[in-house]
Order: sequence, then C-alpha cells, then structure tokens
Amino acid sequence: MDTSAADAAHMARAVELAARGHGSTSPNPVVGCVVLSPSGQVVGEGFHPYAGGPHAEVVALAQAGERARGGTAYVTLEPCDHTGRTGPCSQALLAAGVARVVVAVADPNPKAAGGATRLRAAGVSVTRGVLAEAAERVNEEWLTFARLGRSHVTWKFAATLDGRSAAADGTSQWITSPQARADVHRLRAASDAIVAGIGTVLADDPHLTARLPEPAPPAESGAESGAESGDGGALLAGSPPLAARPLGARPPLRVVVDTEGRTPPAARVLDDEAPTLVAVADDAATGLKAGLLRLPRHDGGLDLAALLRELAAREVVSVFLEGGPTLAGAFLRQGLIDRVVAYLAPALLGEGRAALGPAGVRTITGIHHLTFDEFSPIGPDLRLIARPAPHQGREK
Amino acid sequence: MDTSAADAAHMARAVELAARGHGSTSPNPVVGCVVLSPSGQVVGEGFHPYAGGPHAEVVALAQAGERARGGTAYVTLEPCDHTGRTGPCSQALLAAGVARVVVAVADPNPKAAGGATRLRAAGVSVTRGVLAEAAERVNEEWLTFARLGRSHVTWKFAATLDGRSAAADGTSQWITSPQARADVHRLRAASDAIVAGIGTVLADDPHLTARLPEPAPPAESGAESGAESGDGGALLAGSPPLAARPLGARPPLRVVVDTEGRTPPAARVLDDEAPTLVAVADDAATGLKAGLLRLPRHDGGLDLAALLRELAAREVVSVFLEGGPTLAGAFLRQGLIDRVVAYLAPALLGEGRAALGPAGVRTITGIHHLTFDEFSPIGPDLRLIARPAPHQGREK
Repeated sequence: MDTSAADAAHMARAVELAARGHGSTSPNPVVGCVVLSPSGQVVGEGFHPYAGGPHAEVVALAQAGERARGGTAYVTLEPCDHTGRTGPCSQALLAAGVARVVVAVADPNPKAAGGATRLRAAGVSVTRGVLAEAAERVNEEWLTFARLGRSHVTWKFAATLDGRSAAADGTSQWITSPQARADVHRLRAASDAIVAGIGTVLADDPHLTARLPEPAPPAESGAESGAESGDGGALLAGSPPLAARPLGARPPLRVVVDTEGRTPPAARVLDDEAPTLVAVADDAATGLKAGLLRLPRHDGGLDLAALLRELAAREVVSVFLEGGPTLAGAFLRQGLIDRVVAYLAPALLGEGRAALGPAGVRTITGIHHLTFDEFSPIGPDLRLIARPAPHQGREK
Repeated sequence: MDTSAADAAHMARAVELAARGHGSTSPNPVVGCVVLSPSGQVVGEGFHPYAGGPHAEVVALAQAGERARGGTAYVTLEPCDHTGRTGPCSQALLAAGVARVVVAVADPNPKAAGGATRLRAAGVSVTRGVLAEAAERVNEEWLTFARLGRSHVTWKFAATLDGRSAAADGTSQWITSPQARADVHRLRAASDAIVAGIGTVLADDPHLTARLPEPAPPAESGAESGAESGDGGALLAGSPPLAARPLGARPPLRVVVDTEGRTPPAARVLDDEAPTLVAVADDAATGLKAGLLRLPRHDGGLDLAALLRELAAREVVSVFLEGGPTLAGAFLRQGLIDRVVAYLAPALLGEGRAALGPAGVRTITGIHHLTFDEFSPIGPDLRLIARPAPHQGREK
C-alpha cells in the first residue's frame, strides 16, 4: 500500500472513531485519532467521548505510550493549540515525540487553531486534507456551528409516499412505524435542541422530549468493554460501535417558534421534563413568563437566522427541526436547512396536510435542490437523508 | 444440497430466465425452464421470448436432446395442455421422456390448464409450488390479467421529496433526471398500453410514446450470441441478460381517459406514431371520431374496471398509468392499482401540483397501505417500487 492509500485507510478509521462521539460531545466537535508506531503498527486509537472528557489525541497517545515516539498520528480535525478544559493537543503530540501528523480538516475555531503551525515549527511533518470530505461529513454539525456561528439544522419529517403527513380530517396517528418513531427518538436524543412551531404545539400538544427505548442487553460478554474500560473512549477495531454516553447529560432544549407568544401555559412542552425556550417577536404582547426569547420579525414570522445565532450562543450545536410544514417552509426560505431526514411510509393519502408548506418557490427554476446521501429501510418505512445541493450554498 | 434446496436453486434460475421475456411476450406469460439430465447436470435452458415464439419448455428440451430422457424439468408456470400457436408443452415433455416436472405456479388459464394432470396420468412425477412467490412476482402482470380478466396496472409518478409534481405556477420541467426519464421510457416500452387522463393531455399535450435511447454497443464480441443464435431464447448461464426483442413489435397502445370526449383533434396523442383509444362516457356528446371506447360512468368519471376489462379483451396485459393526480386517485379509489413506481427527485417545492389527487381517504384509518419492494438510485433520483399491502386485497 503506498503512503497516500495507507494515509486514507488510517484516516477512514479515525473518522469511524470520531463518529462514536456523535450526540455527546456538544459543544465540542467529534474527533477521532489513530497513532502508528515508526514501523507502521497501529498502537493507539481514541475519540473525544464527551465535552470535558479527554481529547482524542490524548486518549490515543496514552494508549500508545513510548511506541508513539517517531510515529505518525492521524487526526480528523486539526489538533487544538489552546488550553480549554484540557491542555492543548499540539503540546501532547510534541511531548509524545510523534514525527508526523496527518490532519483531515483544519480547525475553523480561531481560539483553537494554530495546532498545525506549532507542530511544524517544532519540526513535525504535517499533512493536511487527507479524507477531508468524510471528516467534514462526520463533523458537519459542529463545523456549521463553528464556521457560521449558528446551530446546524436537521429537518425531519414523516410522510406518506405522496408527501402527506395527515389525512384530510387532520388525523395522523402512526403514519410511520414504531421502528421509525424509535429512530426519531434516537436522533432527537443526539440533538442539542428540538424545535417546533406554534401550529404543531396547538394542534398536537407534543412533549418534544427524547424517549429512548430500554437499551438491549449486550450481545456478548465483551460488548461493554469499551464503556467499562474507563479510558475515555479508547477503542480498538472490533470494539462495539457505540460511545458510552455520559450519565446525566442534559436533555435536548425544547424550542417553540411562536411569533405572537400563544403557547398555552398548560402545554406539555412547558412541563419540567426538559428546559424550554419560547421564541417570540420582540414586540409580541404575550402573557408567557419563563424562557422567553425575543427576536426580530422577518418574512411574516421570526428571523430564524437570529434564532440560530441565539441558540449557538447557548452552545446549541445541533437543532432537530420537527413539527410544522409552515415552520419547515420558513427555514427553507431563509436557507437554514442543512440536512433533511425524511421517513416515508409505504402508504398513500391523496389529500390532507402536506409535509412541507410554502417554501418560497413560485416556478420550477426556484426549486430547492438537494442530493440524496442515504437510503435506509427502517422497519416497513424508508429513511432518506438529503442535503442541500453543493452548488446552491447553504446561506442564501 | 438436499432435493428441496436443489429444486429451489434450479427454479430460481428458471425465474431468472423467465424475466428475460419481460416486455415482449404479451399477451402470453413469461416462462422460464431448466432441464436436468438424470445425473443432475443442467442440459437445457429456455424462456418464452415473444408471443408466437417457442415456449420455454420446447426451447430447453431441444437444447437438451436425448439427455433429457429420465431427467427433470423446472418450469415457472404449469406447462400448457392446449394447442395454441404452438403445440402443448405437456406433450413435448412426455415425448422427451422427462421423469419429473417441478412447477412453481399453477396455470390459472382454463384454456391452458391441465398440463400437470396429463403429466401425472402418464406417470411423470409432478412437484408444485416450488419458489411460487418469486415465480408469481416475475409473472405478476400476466397472472393479474389471467386471474382477474383485466389489465395489470402500474402507476408511475415523478415528484419531489415532498410529493409535488409541478411548481405553484404549473411549471414542471425536469423535476427528475435524464436517467430517470430514460428509465420511464424503458418501462413504457415494456407495457402494452400507456394511460393518461384528459387533464394531462390538455395541460402537457404529451405523445405518450416510448422513445428508447440508442442501444449501447455490445461490451464484448460474445454479447450478442443469445440474440443471434436464432434458437428462440436458449441461454446458458453467462449469456447476456437481455431478451432479443422481436422486430416490429407493436408500440404500446395509447389510452386517454376522457369522460366527456374533450381531446383536441390536433392533440399529439392522436398522431400516427402509435394506435390510440379515447375512453369516453357512453352518453358523452363528443365530436371525436376514431378510436372511441364508450364506457359506463362511475364515481364522477368512468368505470375504470370496465376500462381494464375492455383493454384485456384487446390483449392488453399491462397498463402503464401516467399523467394525472386526478386519474391516479380514481384508479386508487377503485382498487385498481397493482404496482406503484415512484421517481423521487432530491428536491423540495412546498407548493404546486400534488403527485396524487383525492383517493377516497377522509381519515387516517382509510389510508392506502403499500409495501416497499425495491429502492434503486437512478442517477441523482431514487426509484421506489411498492405494491398494495397483502392484507388489503387488490379489488375493493
């Protein structure tokens, strides 16, 4: 295997490791690291398991010990050069005597950047851009947050094959399967905030909480070793592909987009199962007391970019947008949807509530282009993941 | 391999062979046949290539010659026992001295049935029901036609991920990709009739013809051997998976569902590229002359079951239903859609023409349940194939 093929293979493994942090590292990025000895043996692997936990590089280097000296480290994101809750990773790599560092994506965070520069200054060979696309993808939520200063938005909808999310009389129970609903709860739980519109709150009175099913028992005795080893995310090939989620992680923030402040005080979304923010217009005359966020009006509703900036300021990296064709249309019009997760049921309605409301398209040339990334059968349903087409840009 | 596993494997091959007749055997079924020598060697393979062409059994037996004596024949459909354009296949099997015949699906055609009875009476061992589900599936169009006395209906639609087939101003150019459109033309060409509603004819003035792209040159010199051998569909493993389509096969019949007979005389669908039938109400006052089919009114439109019976009487086995959310809704209401082929574009509109119009569902319990059978990426789009869920039945 030539160097670049070997580099890609090791970085692919680092990306895999990084993915294990999904849903628990916020407001930090997910990061994976693979350390090779000078002879090319994998001697350390690590990922960043949760905010405040050890960084991927530190985990992998601890595992490698003296075998890292003169070796190579693969890191999905440029090693940080600042002292946050943990010391700078660039320092740790230098202390371990690593001779070469391969980086997939540059750190866009001005506070953390500079790791590559410090390493080079110390005589370490640094290669950048290896498997950058996969590493961007695994970290897309945090990179959107860091680069644009706003939360990343995943719009989820569930609909029939003909795009309806309720029948003509408004009934909508169980269009998708229990398996699809469980998958939605999993995605909710991995998000920092769940956002719904006032229409959905008034119509369905949802809790907007993540109710995860009981975890299945481990398939074999070794299956929990990663979680039990206490080494903060060190895993070698063959370990289970699930990160240990920190106990007591905060539940996702609930956000109601409610321009005029009409959320009923007795609404379930205001119960004490999770914190809630009600976003209202800065001039809305509302009797609501707690958790108000006042925002400028825009386009007949609220300025949603301002909402996402306010959420980012509260360390909300990822938003899971649910509930409401009207609100989804407004996010789409304002160019603020970064990913679409569609659950399509094998069923037809022909009439009833459309999954998506007006999205600012009058004629076909204004269509919102996406690209499909994934198709997965989920029980009898189909889950599709799509993203805005690259040539469109994310901010209009 | 025990007998039943070997039976299933040989029948799976026969099903594969049968599929090569798709699109050219109408009004006959597709049929595949594999013949084994007494020692279990595959000594003959065949399929029914086109109506009037040799039957699968005859092809496979001719290839096997004397090696079939005392051997086994696998046939996807019960061998016919009547003399149509060719002699009865039960006779051919007896003449070849086959000792055992394995059948997947019983012949529902009263004119042809009885092949198994005749074989048993002559001392041949007959096994039925092997791999019946796959053999039903490969022949679903013809079996619907033979069992129900009406044409089989495939409803095709192309829409955005949110179920729209045109923008708010009615424009709809190129929602799906060139690859998806080519796939549609392939499916059209394999159908006996293409059906559209008067709304589509008035709005889009379509030709409703199958325009197939130029065939790609063969990948290697041997790739045309199946077509050139002149043996009417004899193929062994490794041969190309495309049947030679008979030259001069009739183009699909064009059918306009036009209750009041409003099709403009200059409409493209009335040109001479293919025959056309305009279905109107039996009391419609229309100036249209040629190709009128008068049908009873039903449910605000035409009696579509009567239409499909009339088409079946004209040897239309398979109907490709395109064009018109209203007409699709009417077929669905009348329980006459046997298969759905949906092309979903990675795009969102939020407004505009829905892919499916009112389909008789007022509340969620009346939803039309389907099951997904296939997901295929076609260029940037996704093609989904679904069928009515088994517990619903096809005729309501």
